Amino acid sequence: MVFLAAAIVASLAAIAGAFAVAIIVRATLEGATRQPEIKGSLQTIMFIGVPLAEALPILAIVISFLILGNA
Amino acid sequence: MVFLAAAIVASLAAIAGAFAVAIIVRATLEGATRQPEIKGSLQTIMFIGVPLAEALPILAIVISFLILGNA
Amino acid sequence: MVFLAAAIVASLAAIAGAFAVAIIVRATLEGATRQPEIKGSLQTIMFIGVPLAEALPILAIVISFLILGNA
Amino acid sequence: MVFLAAAIVASLAAIAGAFAVAIIVRATLEGATRQPEIKGSLQTIMFIGVPLAEALPILAIVISFLILGNA
Amino acid sequence: MVFLAAAIVASLAAIAGAFAVAIIVRATLEGATRQPEIKGSLQTIMFIGVPLAEALPILAIVISFLILGNA
Amino acid sequence: MVFLAAAIVASLAAIAGAFAVAIIVRATLEGATRQPEIKGSLQTIMFIGVPLAEALPILAIVISFLILGNA
Amino acid sequence: MVFLAAAIVASLAAIAGAFAVAIIVRATLEGATRQPEIKGSLQTIMFIGVPLAEALPILAIVISFLILGNA
Amino acid sequence: MVFLAAAIVASLAAIAGAFAVAIIVRATLEGATRQPEIKGSLQTIMFIGVPLAEALPILAIVISFLILGNA
Amino acid sequence: MVFLAAAIVASLAAIAGAFAVAIIVRATLEGATRQPEIKGSLQTIMFIGVPLAEALPILAIVISFLILGNA
Amino acid sequence: MVFLAAAIVASLAAIAGAFAVAIIVRATLEGATRQPEIKGSLQTIMFIGVPLAEALPILAIVISFLILGNA
Amino acid sequence: MVFLAAAIVASLAAIAGAFAVAIIVRATLEGATRQPEIKGSLQTIMFIGVPLAEALPILAIVISFLILGNA
Amino acid sequence: MVFLAAAIVASLAAIAGAFAVAIIVRATLEGATRQPEIKGSLQTIMFIGVPLAEALPILAIVISFLILGNA
Amino acid sequence: MVFLAAAIVASLAAIAGAFAVAIIVRATLEGATRQPEIKGSLQTIMFIGVPLAEALPILAIVISFLILGNA
Amino acid sequence: MVFLAAAIVASLAAIAGAFAVAIIVRATLEGATRQPEIKGSLQTIMFIGVPLAEALPILAIVISFLILGNA
Repeated sequence: MVFLAAAIVASLAAIAGAFAVAIIVRATLEGATRQPEIKGSLQTIMFIGVPLAEALPILAIVISFLILGNA
Repeated sequence: MVFLAAAIVASLAAIAGAFAVAIIVRATLEGATRQPEIKGSLQTIMFIGVPLAEALPILAIVISFLILGNA
Repeated sequence: MVFLAAAIVASLAAIAGAFAVAIIVRATLEGATRQPEIKGSLQTIMFIGVPLAEALPILAIVISFLILGNA
Repeated sequence: MVFLAAAIVASLAAIAGAFAVAIIVRATLEGATRQPEIKGSLQTIMFIGVPLAEALPILAIVISFLILGNA
Repeated sequence: MVFLAAAIVASLAAIAGAFAVAIIVRATLEGATRQPEIKGSLQTIMFIGVPLAEALPILAIVISFLILGNA
Repeated sequence: MVFLAAAIVASLAAIAGAFAVAIIVRATLEGATRQPEIKGSLQTIMFIGVPLAEALPILAIVISFLILGNA
Repeated sequence: MVFLAAAIVASLAAIAGAFAVAIIVRATLEGATRQPEIKGSLQTIMFIGVPLAEALPILAIVISFLILGNA
Repeated sequence: MVFLAAAIVASLAAIAGAFAVAIIVRATLEGATRQPEIKGSLQTIMFIGVPLAEALPILAIVISFLILGNA
Repeated sequence: MVFLAAAIVASLAAIAGAFAVAIIVRATLEGATRQPEIKGSLQTIMFIGVPLAEALPILAIVISFLILGNA
Repeated sequence: MVFLAAAIVASLAAIAGAFAVAIIVRATLEGATRQPEIKGSLQTIMFIGVPLAEALPILAIVISFLILGNA
Repeated sequence: MVFLAAAIVASLAAIAGAFAVAIIVRATLEGATRQPEIKGSLQTIMFIGVPLAEALPILAIVISFLILGNA
Repeated sequence: MVFLAAAIVASLAAIAGAFAVAIIVRATLEGATRQPEIKGSLQTIMFIGVPLAEALPILAIVISFLILGNA
Repeated sequence: MVFLAAAIVASLAAIAGAFAVAIIVRATLEGATRQPEIKGSLQTIMFIGVPLAEALPILAIVISFLILGNA
Repeated sequence: MVFLAAAIVASLAAIAGAFAVAIIVRATLEGATRQPEIKGSLQTIMFIGVPLAEALPILAIVISFLILGNA
């Protein structure tokens, strides 16, 4: 049961983190396509947004390692 | 059962937090693309909105640690 | 079973609160993008709407702590 | 089983209340964006609609406390 | 089993009532945005529609109390 | 099992009735927004349609009371 | 098991009947909105279509009563 | 198990029949709205299509009665 | 188990047949609405398509009767 | 278990065959509506496509009969 | 268990094959409707694409026969 | 359990391969419809893309045969 | 259980790899259709993107072989 | 249970990584199609975004190997 719990946390955190980053990067790419002259500002917002979106999945990965440490 | 409960909280909180932040950041990027001159105001609303959206997932992560503390 | 019940409440409340706030903040950002001159009024409606939307998830988090207190 | 029942009521009521309020607030924000001059009337409809939408989830939260009282 | 049955009725009735009211109020807000001069008539239809939509969820809440009375 | 059966009927009937009424009322509101001069005729169709849509959910509620009467 | 079987038939028949009627009435309302001068003909088709759509759910309700009669 | 089998057939046949008729009637209503002068021809196709769509659900209802006859 | 197997075949065949016919009839109605002068040709394609779409569900109904014959 | 296996194959093959044919016939009807003068060519492609789409479901029906032959 | 395994392979292969062919044939029909003069080239691509899409489902049917051969 | 495992791999690989090829071929057909003069280049990309998309499903089919070899 | 685990990894990796490649190739085909003169650059991006997208599914296939090696 | 846990992590990480990369690459291809002159900048953002999106799935794969190491 311990391994299964660690597996659920890690896999769902991977799904959350990967798709959240993909959504943000796609919006950055579409914005840079429509208005190339503000490409820098969009990248700045992207660099602020990606860590904010990955904060909680990384916390979940930490919990996954904590659960694995009990096995 | 304790590890499974902590796993469910952590993984769903990660999904909720990551996608909520991604939705807000995408809206900020799209707004900055359409009207670059109010980029600052949009970032202000983003900085207000992201903690409001992450308040409840972080509370859930705290509950996850509380449950893990009982294992 | 007690931990599982607390986990379900906390995780679904996190999902409800995070996405509800994200929907409201996104609408505010889109509104501020289209009509920047009424940005203040939109923020006022946002500040009224977010607590209304988070009232019930926070009540659910309280119930989660009540259930955990029985463990 | 008692805790699980209370958990289901509380979590689904949180989801119902949070998303219903979010839908109404988003419609108010979009309306205020398109026609800023009737912002007051839209807020009036919002203040009538939000309690109507939260009436049943709050009743469900009451039922959740009733079930918890039996534990 | 009794508590679980009451929980299912109450939570699904909350979902049904909250979202039905939200759909009607959103339509009223959108209508009032497009044609502000018939705001009164739309509110009249809303006040007729909301009790009709909440009639069955409230009946279900009554059944939930009946089931709880047997516990 | 008896309570669970009554719960399933009542909750799904509530969902069916609430959303069906919401769909009809929303269509009436949208129609009254586009052509305010035939508001009366649309309300007439709404008053014919709502009982037709609620006929079967109310029958299901009756069955729910019949099942509860056997408990 | 008998009550559960009757519950499934009644609840799904309620969902089928309510949403089918709602779809037809919504189409009638939209048609009457676009072309008010053929309102009568649309109502005629609606009055033909609603019983056709409710024929099978009512048959299912009859089967539900038959199953309940065996309890 | 016999009652459950009859319940599944009857309920899914009700869903299939009700929604199929609703789809056809909605298409007829939309067609009559766009071109009122061929209303008669559309009704003819509707009267051909509805029995064709209800043929298989009615067969399933017959099977439901056959299964009930074995109880 | 025999009755359940027959029930699954009959109900899913009813769903498949009813919706497939509904899709084809809706396309015919939409086609006849846009170009009334080729109404006959569209009906011809409809009369060819409906039996082709119902061939496999009717085969499944036959299998359902075969399974019932073993009960 | 044998009857259940035959039931699953037959019902899913019916769904696959019916909807695949419905998709192809709908495309033919829409094509014949937009360009009536190439109605013949579209019917030719339809007569090629339908057997290709039904080849695998019919193979599955054969497997269903093979499984039933073992009962 | 052997029959169930063969049933799952055959039914999902039927779904995969039928819908894949339906998607390709629909695209061919839509292409032939928009540009009738390159009907031949589109049919050529269709005849190349259909076997490529059916290669894996037919392999799965072969595996289904292999599994049935062990019963 | 061995047959069930082989069945799951084979059927999901068939779904993956068939739909992936169908998506690519549909895109090729739509491209050839819009710009018939670059039909050859599109076919070249299609012939590169189809094996890339089928590489992993074929690997999964190989694993299915490996699992069957252990039965 | 070992075979089932290997089957789940292999089948989901096949789904992930096949659909990811299909999405990328479809985007390349649509891009080459709209702007044939940059066909080469799009192919370059495609050749960079496909291995990046297949990296993780291939790793999962390797894990599937590792699990099979323990059987 | 150990193999099943490793299988769940690896397969869901493969799905997350593959689709996230596919979303980013598709956005890059669409951007390069609309504005070929900023192709280089879009590729730069893509090369930044892909590792960010794959960071968490690769961490999950590492956890999968850790779980496998305990078998």
